[in-house]
Amino acid sequence: MSANPLAAIMAPRSIAVVGASNNPLKMGSIQYLNLRHSGFPGPVLPVHPTEKTVFGLEAYATIEALPMAPDLALLVVPGRLVVEMIEAFGRRGTRHAVVITAGFGETGDAGRQREEALKAAAARHGLRFLGPNCMGLVNTRLPLNVTAAPLVAPPGHLSLVSQSGTYITQTLHYLNERGVRLNQAISVGNEADIDLVDGLEHLGADPETRAIGLYIESIRRPEAFLAAARRITPHKPIIAQYVGGTSAGARAGASHTAALAGPDEVVDGLFRQAGIIRARSIEEVYRVGAALATQPPLRGRRIAILTNSGGPGTAMADTLERLGLEVPAFSPALRERIQAHLPSHASAANPVDLTFHTDMTLMARTLPALLMASDEVDGLLIHGIMDTGWADMAYPVFQDLFQVSREDFRRNFHADVDALVDLPSRWGKPLVISSFFGREDRAVRCFHAAEVPVFDAPEKAAAAMGALLDRRGTSAELETEERLPEPAHDRVRRLVQAAARQGWNEFTAKRLLAAFGIPTCRETLALSPEAAAAAAREIGFPVAVKGCAAHLTHKSELGLVHLNVGSPADVSRACASIARAEPEAGFLVAEMVRGEREFIAGLHRPPGFPPVVVFGLGGIWAEALRDQAVRLAPLSLADARSQIGAIRASAALGAFRGYPPVDREALAQVLVRLAQLAAACPAIREIDLNPLVIRAGRPVVVDALFVA
Amino acid sequence: MSANPLAAIMAPRSIAVVGASNNPLKMGSIQYLNLRHSGFPGPVLPVHPTEKTVFGLEAYATIEALPMAPDLALLVVPGRLVVEMIEAFGRRGTRHAVVITAGFGETGDAGRQREEALKAAAARHGLRFLGPNCMGLVNTRLPLNVTAAPLVAPPGHLSLVSQSGTYITQTLHYLNERGVRLNQAISVGNEADIDLVDGLEHLGADPETRAIGLYIESIRRPEAFLAAARRITPHKPIIAQYVGGTSAGARAGASHTAALAGPDEVVDGLFRQAGIIRARSIEEVYRVGAALATQPPLRGRRIAILTNSGGPGTAMADTLERLGLEVPAFSPALRERIQAHLPSHASAANPVDLTFHTDMTLMARTLPALLMASDEVDGLLIHGIMDTGWADMAYPVFQDLFQVSREDFRRNFHADVDALVDLPSRWGKPLVISSFFGREDRAVRCFHAAEVPVFDAPEKAAAAMGALLDRRGTSAELETEERLPEPAHDRVRRLVQAAARQGWNEFTAKRLLAAFGIPTCRETLALSPEAAAAAAREIGFPVAVKGCAAHLTHKSELGLVHLNVGSPADVSRACASIARAEPEAGFLVAEMVRGEREFIAGLHRPPGFPPVVVFGLGGIWAEALRDQAVRLAPLSLADARSQIGAIRASAALGAFRGYPPVDREALAQVLVRLAQLAAACPAIREIDLNPLVIRAGRPVVVDALFVA
Repeated sequence: MSANPLAAIMAPRSIAVVGASNNPLKMGSIQYLNLRHSGFPGPVLPVHPTEKTVFGLEAYATIEALPMAPDLALLVVPGRLVVEMIEAFGRRGTRHAVVITAGFGETGDAGRQREEALKAAAARHGLRFLGPNCMGLVNTRLPLNVTAAPLVAPPGHLSLVSQSGTYITQTLHYLNERGVRLNQAISVGNEADIDLVDGLEHLGADPETRAIGLYIESIRRPEAFLAAARRITPHKPIIAQYVGGTSAGARAGASHTAALAGPDEVVDGLFRQAGIIRARSIEEVYRVGAALATQPPLRGRRIAILTNSGGPGTAMADTLERLGLEVPAFSPALRERIQAHLPSHASAANPVDLTFHTDMTLMARTLPALLMASDEVDGLLIHGIMDTGWADMAYPVFQDLFQVSREDFRRNFHADVDALVDLPSRWGKPLVISSFFGREDRAVRCFHAAEVPVFDAPEKAAAAMGALLDRRGTSAELETEERLPEPAHDRVRRLVQAAARQGWNEFTAKRLLAAFGIPTCRETLALSPEAAAAAAREIGFPVAVKGCAAHLTHKSELGLVHLNVGSPADVSRACASIARAEPEAGFLVAEMVRGEREFIAGLHRPPGFPPVVVFGLGGIWAEALRDQAVRLAPLSLADARSQIGAIRASAALGAFRGYPPVDREALAQVLVRLAQLAAACPAIREIDLNPLVIRAGRPVVVDALFVA
Repeated sequence: MSANPLAAIMAPRSIAVVGASNNPLKMGSIQYLNLRHSGFPGPVLPVHPTEKTVFGLEAYATIEALPMAPDLALLVVPGRLVVEMIEAFGRRGTRHAVVITAGFGETGDAGRQREEALKAAAARHGLRFLGPNCMGLVNTRLPLNVTAAPLVAPPGHLSLVSQSGTYITQTLHYLNERGVRLNQAISVGNEADIDLVDGLEHLGADPETRAIGLYIESIRRPEAFLAAARRITPHKPIIAQYVGGTSAGARAGASHTAALAGPDEVVDGLFRQAGIIRARSIEEVYRVGAALATQPPLRGRRIAILTNSGGPGTAMADTLERLGLEVPAFSPALRERIQAHLPSHASAANPVDLTFHTDMTLMARTLPALLMASDEVDGLLIHGIMDTGWADMAYPVFQDLFQVSREDFRRNFHADVDALVDLPSRWGKPLVISSFFGREDRAVRCFHAAEVPVFDAPEKAAAAMGALLDRRGTSAELETEERLPEPAHDRVRRLVQAAARQGWNEFTAKRLLAAFGIPTCRETLALSPEAAAAAAREIGFPVAVKGCAAHLTHKSELGLVHLNVGSPADVSRACASIARAEPEAGFLVAEMVRGEREFIAGLHRPPGFPPVVVFGLGGIWAEALRDQAVRLAPLSLADARSQIGAIRASAALGAFRGYPPVDREALAQVLVRLAQLAAACPAIREIDLNPLVIRAGRPVVVDALFVA
């Protein structure tokens, strides 16, 4: 693997800027000024055709006139100039660039052609670039900032890759207000060269990045994305928002499987397979991301809640329980130790509710130390620490009547959080704060300075605690990588060759499934009613009799499916009915499988993605309940087990009404083998196994549809 | 109905305060000072045993010494003094009080006794009170504020009732920062007298309240709450957070129905029946509440999005589509009108994306006017208007190099939103803003001043737009109030009397259901195997044979259920097997009902609530999928229709695999009749109709369990 170009781009020793002028309201100037203001330690070399200097620095008339080959070229110039400038930088010996300029692939055919020319020019010189149509990058530790907004917060440990430039520019002030500190941030723009996956791999390897946040509208290299994320998540959490999957037009395909696995479900499956936490908003990417980057993982489910008010305490407990965490009753011994410090009427139960009081020592020092030290507690949530925020709110009221200075007044409400902020690293347990005050509150600023996450709503603080547990839950599933042996290739080849001539029908489809080791029901394809009756006697009554020919779908609606056929005479009648509806069809005679539970399993190939395996609740409710999980092929057995566990209906896989429990391992093997089939038979576009019936605890394919 | 005491409590002409002293750090003093600071126009009369004045106002040594009977008494005194003071105020002629003091019912037996004494003392004098253990109230228009925090925002149109005092005190600054303005807010505390329902009724009748927000931990009078909310929601939206329902211990009961309808599901059903929007966080109560209070309802689903950045635009579109709203492509004519104003590279599609630019005229004036005037648009979301927030962020960068004052620099980024904020009332269409800046941004302050909601995340802005549609969707369901006729009382009475002696068994349970007009399967209770065989012949084979006796549950597990019994000999064998397992049981012989779809319906009586009717997906997945809806009895047909529509599986009630569509009206009648049964037969605690099978499109009860 060649070195990741972002290693150089994020840490250049010198930068040339083309497109900055002495007009401070142009985008190029704004980015140049931010670069200068960021304190970048190396030379910054403006290139301008006519200006002698640009904001005090000597400007060079051409790229050729530059005194050195800069490590990085930043281009904020009209689109028509970009290709020739990349050529010029390439000739000059520069090997990395950031192309801010828009008007490429995102704008239509002419733009796409220009983007191809840009790629070709860069490739000729081995030059790697970010963009076009991006907002640049941030490396807070160098420091280096070429976005349109200044860095305002100190360096942190959350790094971002974003397909929207706004999320690393417009939000820098927003993030500082909320105590979210970045390490690096990369706007990938059109991804003509460097893309999301490069960004992910770069940050995965970056030692100062402790959590990665992603904003994604489309994943151009899903296999590489999945592979990179799987390598990273066991030791570094990733939280990602994906917003590309809602458009109704994006769903297409002939099978149920395709209908159940649109882009949103596919990416959701990919995230789960990769151990990525899915964010539902950019706020979660940033703020839960910051909690992941700064707090120890939650090593158990038991959360202590400390509050000065019942409402926020109850709301945090409610949110935690919905997320599967616990707010356990404390032991009598711990309750006694807490009670010793409490005013009367306050509750030593969990939540520990001090009720309204203005002395912050208990809440900010004594009780947190006691709770974090307890082996009954895995993490701590606090609501109600207030310092200057509360004092300044109250001051105007007091000022009416007292000659008291603001500073003197504030002293009454001081909250000393110095010891509190050390507790997470001391005990290896996370601390998350909820406060209705922002940075106007001194305590909030202290939390920000110590990188303790603060949320402006109790429910959000509790949800962040939930993510600190998730981080461990999902990555734990990825450890096993067992795969199943491949099937006998000659048998598969013969079936595929035959289908290439005749198409797939239900009978040949099931033969191929069987070749891959997927259990199917007993059945015979008969070409006459007499042969059908003989087959039925051989199989044993009652049987199912179905019309069988290539490309038949909606067989039930066409009257081609006859179930519970109980006698030879009934077989004849069924065959006659089938022959009237579909004269060319054969007669598929199959055992009647009395199932206990019905699932749907299948395969399809969403555009731009590897094949996906779908597993879900089957039967009449399948489409109404949409209880399915998607995984990208190839599947390990661990993937398949997690896929089965991901559907809600998996809660009912145990023994039930006298039926044995479902053999999850046999079910997992069906899913793994579907993925093998996808790889071996690329001409099969979609597969529905519907229903996949559980008989005596084990899965049996009763109907199969292939779309080729 | 007597007058609501809150009408007087929220608008008193004079207030006595007991518990304020000249020590400004005591709660009583803090509330007194806030009352003074609020600008309350009437006399404020402190009562103090020793102080001659309290912060400059003459103090009265006793309640008797007051110069008048104050309209309202505010008590912030030790708990042991509260009862005698209420007596004293009662004697003095005061008829309304607010009891801030804690240490009553919330603290155990002694506290509960003190609360009873308080209620009795108040009742003796016809005195109505808020509390104890509350944080007071706010009426921004009087103005009047007796909470522990000062009012900072101007009056608005959102009013609150909260079971947590914090949510009307600690958050007043938080709300102001976010542009949320209150009209009235009521902390109900322990609700010893005035409760949530009184608060709701008061705000429902208050002309300045345009939306109501509730924070609820428990609903003490659910019928009255439901009735009040149903009267209000058709003309005034209510948004409520409920956090009392997660504790696992709160679920109890012998039936499936009880297991499916814990406190959270019951309250969820109540909210839906009442047309209340359920908030999942206090932030939603406040901020979506403020949007509901200030914006016109959304009269259609078509939202225009205007943005200066792809990410927020895409994220808003994604959220809207998840909520069932539309981001429609504009007509060519509208696109052309938009395009005429756009820079090159900007998109006239929906979202309209101007891309990064610093001139705010297009985004803040021209395009919003054009979009709001269009009959293709029902509501408008804007992200990216920035004024001093952006300028002040950029200023330090420019200040490095220019001699420019902050004021001069800001002028380059001015966003004139004066015309924009008038558009919602002009066109009767809602406007919601997303901005990564807060009140440091002048444009945000202008939106706050004009009561246009601003959210700090694109997804939240879009979700608020969704609530503006919900407000209409839910209340529309409440219009019909048809009820079904009651059943023949004598038949019901005979069955109930018999059951009082013998208990309910499956057979008598179904007879009672039939008396209420609920369709049941054909069946006979036989007392001998011979009679059972005769009954089976009469019904026609195959039949079901079940052991039948009072209080039998888990019949399948006990071997008491024999399905598909095909011959007289098989009936005998089934009877013999049943007799071995349960010698006292009769033999219930029933037709085999081949159903197309299975549901569960039932009844239970959660503590503190009226009976509830549960309807949900049945069969083996019922408990795993928990796809159910709950409604409180009595049910109208409209309630029952909405209940059926509320389960996910209702998407599969149409014609399917050759089966006719489910008769929703017949299903709705079953639910309405279960509610009638609950009212008529209070001794029946729980009912499971499991399964309620659909045969030929209509519901039939196949098994019934009564818990008495």
